[in-house]
Amino acid sequence: VKKLLNDPADAVADSLAGFALAHADLVQVSSSPVFVSRAGGAVTGKVGLVSGGGSGHEPLHAGFVGAGMLDAAVPGAVFTSPTPDQILPAVQAADGGAGVLAIVKNYTGDVLNFETAVELAEAEGVEVATVLVNDDVAVEDSLYTAGRRGVAGTLAVEKIAGAAADRGADLGTVTAVAQRVVANVRSMGVALAAPVVPHVGRPSFDLGDDEIEVGIGIHGEPGRRRVPAASADEVTEMLLAPVADDLGLTGGDRVLLFVNGMGGTPLSELYVVYGRARRLLEERGVTVSRSLVGNYVTSLEMQGASVTVLRLDDELEALWDAPVTTAALRW
Amino acid sequence: VKKLLNDPADAVADSLAGFALAHADLVQVSSSPVFVSRAGGAVTGKVGLVSGGGSGHEPLHAGFVGAGMLDAAVPGAVFTSPTPDQILPAVQAADGGAGVLAIVKNYTGDVLNFETAVELAEAEGVEVATVLVNDDVAVEDSLYTAGRRGVAGTLAVEKIAGAAADRGADLGTVTAVAQRVVANVRSMGVALAAPVVPHVGRPSFDLGDDEIEVGIGIHGEPGRRRVPAASADEVTEMLLAPVADDLGLTGGDRVLLFVNGMGGTPLSELYVVYGRARRLLEERGVTVSRSLVGNYVTSLEMQGASVTVLRLDDELEALWDAPVTTAALRW
Repeated sequence: VKKLLNDPADAVADSLAGFALAHADLVQVSSSPVFVSRAGGAVTGKVGLVSGGGSGHEPLHAGFVGAGMLDAAVPGAVFTSPTPDQILPAVQAADGGAGVLAIVKNYTGDVLNFETAVELAEAEGVEVATVLVNDDVAVEDSLYTAGRRGVAGTLAVEKIAGAAADRGADLGTVTAVAQRVVANVRSMGVALAAPVVPHVGRPSFDLGDDEIEVGIGIHGEPGRRRVPAASADEVTEMLLAPVADDLGLTGGDRVLLFVNGMGGTPLSELYVVYGRARRLLEERGVTVSRSLVGNYVTSLEMQGASVTVLRLDDELEALWDAPVTTAALRW
Repeated sequence: VKKLLNDPADAVADSLAGFALAHADLVQVSSSPVFVSRAGGAVTGKVGLVSGGGSGHEPLHAGFVGAGMLDAAVPGAVFTSPTPDQILPAVQAADGGAGVLAIVKNYTGDVLNFETAVELAEAEGVEVATVLVNDDVAVEDSLYTAGRRGVAGTLAVEKIAGAAADRGADLGTVTAVAQRVVANVRSMGVALAAPVVPHVGRPSFDLGDDEIEVGIGIHGEPGRRRVPAASADEVTEMLLAPVADDLGLTGGDRVLLFVNGMGGTPLSELYVVYGRARRLLEERGVTVSRSLVGNYVTSLEMQGASVTVLRLDDELEALWDAPVTTAALRW
C-alpha cells in the first residue's frame, strides 16, 4: 500500500505542520500536546467551540476552525481518540470568558477523554457544556460505541452552533441550538472499498470485489450488512430510507441534504448520489432547501459516501447560511 | 471495480443532473447539447469566460462556474474532449456583449474542437479569444498532446482571468492577464494508483505495488518515469524541483503554492506534500504568499497529487484574492 507519507508514525504531525503553514491566517497548531486553535486566539466574550476526535477524517475537525465555526480542534492519532491532556489546553484556548461548548462524536474513547478534560477545565474555572453527536442510524451499538455513532452530521452541529456563538448567544443558548441540530440530523454511509491506516499498512476490512458494506462507520467498523454491489440509485435508497424514516420526515418538512464522500470516491459520483437522494426526498413531499456535496467527514481513502439529512427550521437555516471562514468550509 | 454509478454510459449526465440540483443558485445545466452556464445568464458588458474538457476531473470545470470565475463550462465524456456543438452554445451563453475568452487545456482534441467552435461563434458575431494552458513540465509531447499538457494550473488561469473580467477589463486585457498566468505557472504530478474509467471498468494503467509514476498526466497517461515508491518528502522533491527549475525561480520571488489531489488521496497526505514543497521553496529563497490545498483538478479516483507553482506579482495576487463564488471555490 502506497501513501504520500514519510514515517507512518509521523503522519498526523507532518500533516498538521503543512496545514499550519497553509492556513496561518486561520489557525495556529500546538505540537506538544497537539491541538489546533484560531490564529487570533479566543474571541473575548464569545462562547468557544471545541471539537476533536481521531485523525483520518480530514477536513473534520481542524479544517473547520475559524470564524463562524470552531475555536479549537483536537486531532488524536489516526482513528484514535485524543487524550485529556490534549483536550484540556484546547478547551482553555477556546475560552473567551463566556464558556466553552465541547462537541463530541459518540465514541466511547472520545466521550471518556472529553469528560476527563472537561472536569479538569472546570476545576480551573472554565464553564464547559458538552453535546454528543450520534447521527448514524445504521447501528445501535458498535465496535467503538454505546448507542449510535457520531458521523457526518457533526459538521452541521459545528457549523450551526458556531454561527449561534458568533452572533453572541450565551452558552446555554448555543448548547440548546447544538442539541436541536443533534435531535434533527441523521446519517448513514456505505463503503465500496476499505481504507488503510498508515501504521497498519493493510485494508481495515476485507470486502469482496462484488460486495459493499451498508451502514459502515467512519473507521471502517462494521455496518448493517454486506450486500452485492448495486447501482448508485439502489445504494442511495438503502441509505436515504433509514435516515428519512428515523427522522420521521413527512410532507412539508424542509431539510439540508448533505452527501459526504468518504475520501476515495470521485466528486462526480457524490453528485449522482445527491441527485437520487433529492428525488427520493421530494417523492416524500420533503423540500430540500440547502445542500452540501463533498469530502468533509472522511475515512482516509475509503471509497464510499454517506447521506445526511438535517430537518431545518427558520433559525437553523439562517444559522447554516451565516458566514463561515475556515480552511474547508467558507461562504 | 465498484462505483457509485448507474449505467456507466450515463455517468456524466447523472452527475450533472445532481450538480444542477445542488447548485441551482449558481448554475444551469443544458442537457442537449451538454454544457453548464451561470444561473443568471451572461453578465451584460462583462467579458465571458468559457472552459471545458473531458469529464473525470471534477470539480474542474463546472465547479468553477460562478461569480468571479467561469461563465460557462463544457464537460465532454470521461477523459474525452467536448464536441464543437457543445462548445458553441456555451460560448454563446457566456457572451455578454464584450467578447468571450476560451480557456483551453492543451490536449489535441480539446484544441481542435474549441478552434472549430470558436470559428462558428465568430461567424455568428461573437468576438472570441483563446488561451492555451500548458503548465505540465513533465513531458514535452505526450499521448494526447503536441507540446505540454494543461493540468492543475488551469484553475489559476480561470480564477485570475475571471477576477480580471469581473472588475471590468476588456477582452484584450483579460486575455493578456490569462496569458501572464500561463507564462508563470508550472505543475507536475505523481500517481500512486490508477483510476478506473467507468465504461472501461479496469485500471487505466498497471502500476506495481512498489512503484509510482512520476510526471503522470490527469488522464493516467504516462509520465516521465516509474520509480520505486518513496517517502512523501522524496516524491515532493521529484515534483517541486522540475517545476521550480522550469519557472526559473530565484530568491525574492513570491508564489502561489497549490497542492492538488488527484481524487483518491486523503487530504491529510496533501498537507504533508504541501509542507515539504513549501520548505523546498523557502530553501530557494522563494516566499509562498498564497496557498491552495485540495482535490480540484482530479483524475477520477486516481491516488496521487500534483504540485503547481504560480509566480505572483501584485496584480496577479490581488486578482487571486478577489471574491469568488462557485460550487468548488469560494472566498
